[in-house]
Amino acid sequence: MFANCPFDIIGEPEFVYHGKWLKTRRVRFRKPGTQIEQVWESAHRSTTPETSTTDGVDIIATLHKAGKKYFVLVKQYRIPINGFCLEFPAGLVDSKESIEAAGLRELKEETGYTATKVISCTEGKQGLDPGITDDSIRFLLVEINGDAPENLNPTQKLDDGEMVEVVLVECDKLLEYVKSICKEVHVEAMVYSFAIGYSLRN
Amino acid sequence: MFANCPFDIIGEPEFVYHGKWLKTRRVRFRKPGTQIEQVWESAHRSTTPETSTTDGVDIIATLHKAGKKYFVLVKQYRIPINGFCLEFPAGLVDSKESIEAAGLRELKEETGYTATKVISCTEGKQGLDPGITDDSIRFLLVEINGDAPENLNPTQKLDDGEMVEVVLVECDKLLEYVKSICKEVHVEAMVYSFAIGYSLRN
Repeated sequence: MFANCPFDIIGEPEFVYHGKWLKTRRVRFRKPGTQIEQVWESAHRSTTPETSTTDGVDIIATLHKAGKKYFVLVKQYRIPINGFCLEFPAGLVDSKESIEAAGLRELKEETGYTATKVISCTEGKQGLDPGITDDSIRFLLVEINGDAPENLNPTQKLDDGEMVEVVLVECDKLLEYVKSICKEVHVEAMVYSFAIGYSLRN
Repeated sequence: MFANCPFDIIGEPEFVYHGKWLKTRRVRFRKPGTQIEQVWESAHRSTTPETSTTDGVDIIATLHKAGKKYFVLVKQYRIPINGFCLEFPAGLVDSKESIEAAGLRELKEETGYTATKVISCTEGKQGLDPGITDDSIRFLLVEINGDAPENLNPTQKLDDGEMVEVVLVECDKLLEYVKSICKEVHVEAMVYSFAIGYSLRN
């Protein structure tokens, strides 16, 4: 490993904690041309499927309903941050499951909605917090016809560890909305940057 | 802590690893109405300043130069992901430093550019990966006049642990660019979602 690393890696990576869901890794390194030994600690999921290159999938869903256009978001309490967080619907990819299948499944489970059309799926892997973890996702973009029979009474199907509230925000009001709630709940960085990007293109 | 938590927390949070940069925490909990005890492991920075509510700042910078408009991004090798990652310029907030001051300092250090105008700064805290860490940032939006004397020869000033390449991408080509490189380098999720948001508003 560390094949293309521009730092000089000292010794072997050491796993200093190996838990049910997370492993903590310690790597010693030097910047080339310096003598100072440094250490980089990071968190890695114990659950990354061998058959997938990414841990999870985030769904960017546009819902068309009664002539209006919404983004579909979810709000849930997150134990790591000790607070509620506004996020895209998302979840881990199961073993042998495609990103697209995982995205459609998680959208249905977390929000009750059935996607009407898959627009696109990103490639590679998108790092969530590359300074401290290799946790990664890919994005699935979908459209939902909210007037279709299967979407008139969306019903969630949550895991035991989940309590998720569905939040529909009119597309044109997304930045305004996240600004209005960002002191009350945490807004996930990728939702906030999406909202900024969406608003900038005026 | 866990004052507004809808889960039943069992016992006290336990720090199972306490390193130089990261701490690993283990929390036992139950979903109300169930008997199943679950565990949530998470990674927390050891360095969060007591004077700041967030760990870091990410800078969304628009550079105007010779009649063209660019976004300023950085590419760097990240030991946790064992690969190169395309990110917004970013850094940790120093003790007693404001988010704005930290953002302007990090922009200058990582890219050599001096911001000409601060557009806005987000409030609250934006979680990077709330499923496994409380690591958080705020966004600073700035404009850079690339034709100004101070920005004609931008010179980085990097820390010992940093090797950072500056990447300028024409604003209208951002999504096209991240799509073209996302299998070769990791694209940070918040950069990718920003690019998707920016492209959607057509």
